[in-house]
Amino acid sequence: MSAPAAAPMFRRVALIGLGLIAGSMALAMRESGLAGRIVGYARSDETRATAREIGLVDEVTDSAAEAVAGADLVVLAVPVGAMGEIAAEIAPHLAPGAILTDVGSVKQSVIEAVAPHVPKGVHFIPGHPLAGTEHSGPRSGFPSLFRNRWWLLTPLPDSDPAAVARLTELVRALGANVETMEPAHHDLVLAVTSHAPHLIAYTMVGVADHLRRVTDDEVIKYSAAGFRDFTRIAASDPTMWRDVFLHNREATLDILGRFAEELFVLQRAIRMGDGQHLHDYFTRTRAIRRGIIEAGQDTAAPDFGRAGKE
Amino acid sequence: MSAPAAAPMFRRVALIGLGLIAGSMALAMRESGLAGRIVGYARSDETRATAREIGLVDEVTDSAAEAVAGADLVVLAVPVGAMGEIAAEIAPHLAPGAILTDVGSVKQSVIEAVAPHVPKGVHFIPGHPLAGTEHSGPRSGFPSLFRNRWWLLTPLPDSDPAAVARLTELVRALGANVETMEPAHHDLVLAVTSHAPHLIAYTMVGVADHLRRVTDDEVIKYSAAGFRDFTRIAASDPTMWRDVFLHNREATLDILGRFAEELFVLQRAIRMGDGQHLHDYFTRTRAIRRGIIEAGQDTAAPDFGRAGKE
Repeated sequence: MSAPAAAPMFRRVALIGLGLIAGSMALAMRESGLAGRIVGYARSDETRATAREIGLVDEVTDSAAEAVAGADLVVLAVPVGAMGEIAAEIAPHLAPGAILTDVGSVKQSVIEAVAPHVPKGVHFIPGHPLAGTEHSGPRSGFPSLFRNRWWLLTPLPDSDPAAVARLTELVRALGANVETMEPAHHDLVLAVTSHAPHLIAYTMVGVADHLRRVTDDEVIKYSAAGFRDFTRIAASDPTMWRDVFLHNREATLDILGRFAEELFVLQRAIRMGDGQHLHDYFTRTRAIRRGIIEAGQDTAAPDFGRAGKE
Repeated sequence: MSAPAAAPMFRRVALIGLGLIAGSMALAMRESGLAGRIVGYARSDETRATAREIGLVDEVTDSAAEAVAGADLVVLAVPVGAMGEIAAEIAPHLAPGAILTDVGSVKQSVIEAVAPHVPKGVHFIPGHPLAGTEHSGPRSGFPSLFRNRWWLLTPLPDSDPAAVARLTELVRALGANVETMEPAHHDLVLAVTSHAPHLIAYTMVGVADHLRRVTDDEVIKYSAAGFRDFTRIAASDPTMWRDVFLHNREATLDILGRFAEELFVLQRAIRMGDGQHLHDYFTRTRAIRRGIIEAGQDTAAPDFGRAGKE
């Protein structure tokens, strides 16, 4: 990270929602002196109390309106399904010239929900950091969360290029790499790389949960054979993910439909004893893993580096 | 690991197959002085040459028969589909009183393939270490692979208890925890914890591979959002896994059938907008992850400890 700047990039930053993403932004901005003052708000009393207790931001307000008043950057970091309501609530209090962004995992539905409320003179630039862990809540953030991760921006046709450049600069200062894309394309790409895999992991863990009742605690005991990787993904925040699936419905169902087709073809190959088909398929998928490691998106260390350390 | 023993537990150990498991056994046995001499054989010329080059074992033989001659422990560490043939090949050369075990991921079909060849006086005790990484081959082993992992033994009704006790002692000395179970039960448990998750991961990665042709390299670029965990599993050895599915066919197809049912129920909930169903489901699966961490089977560190280290 760079040394604290002489002058902060934003005078007052308002974080609406104080979970993993907002908390990590607060810690990273503070570490790098990017914000003059960081103010936060969360709907839950408990979250606000925790944020105050650990000093996550400079000030925790009891309303979203108070938080955004006078802010030159406002970040909506709430579940996708809550974006519209909170946008309506803060809209009258947004300062002219402010940048308004969000960190939602779905872009088209957030734009539909938020854009109609944004006053003229406020720059709404939707965004999505591809960063996170299976943990959630105000205690789960850490300043390096965004380092070397992608942060996708989906500017609107009338977005002010200067405002987009300013937000891009901030995101880069948090350690992330920035790309811009069309909102619909974002939602398709994420359906493949994130939303469908999450639903599949949830499903497999649910199947095992039913069977666990038959085989006692064996599923947990012997999970290291592959299953435990699914359980990490399936431990992600239920509210956030409920909203993702409901709000990226079409793209997710499209990918899940393709997945079910492929699964049936492989099941049939197993049933018919078609070893050649299975071997060819598994050889192709192995190559993708190599691509990911070569692209610097994961470690080549065996078992994510877990092996031999336990 | 304990200090080298005064006398090794086995005078001569023969490893048939020199991949990740056999290589790790060799390194762990050497580290702890558990074997007087470790001899290895692999069918592939290239594997034998590599094993010689890196000194993986004390001696690499050019036939399985040479390797097992005079051995008091013989370990079959080849793909499940190759077990029967290699057992037939070595049977006439096995020493009376020797322990013969295997490390195959499926137990019923290995027993069916191997047991008929085992001469009287040789103790066949099937086994399965729940340990591995996505890497394979003679260079992939490391001595701590089995540490704190489960090693399941599925003794036969007529297995000699003294021989089972001796193999158990060895496996514990490699760092593993031992349980015994019925072969059929083993195959069901592993279908849930390992075989079905692997096929599902292979399937999802295959779907993305088709889509990658549409979206260029975006699937790889943005894989950190969840997908990359699947690619690690789907990078596992194609031959080994082809054999696992073909040889644990019934149990795997049973679990995949249940999986497809659950998936359809969740897809329907997404289509119908049933957020309550999704939220309840995701809350249950989160609890399973907690169970795994409490059972010491995975790290509680966010993102397997990858987060913030990259």
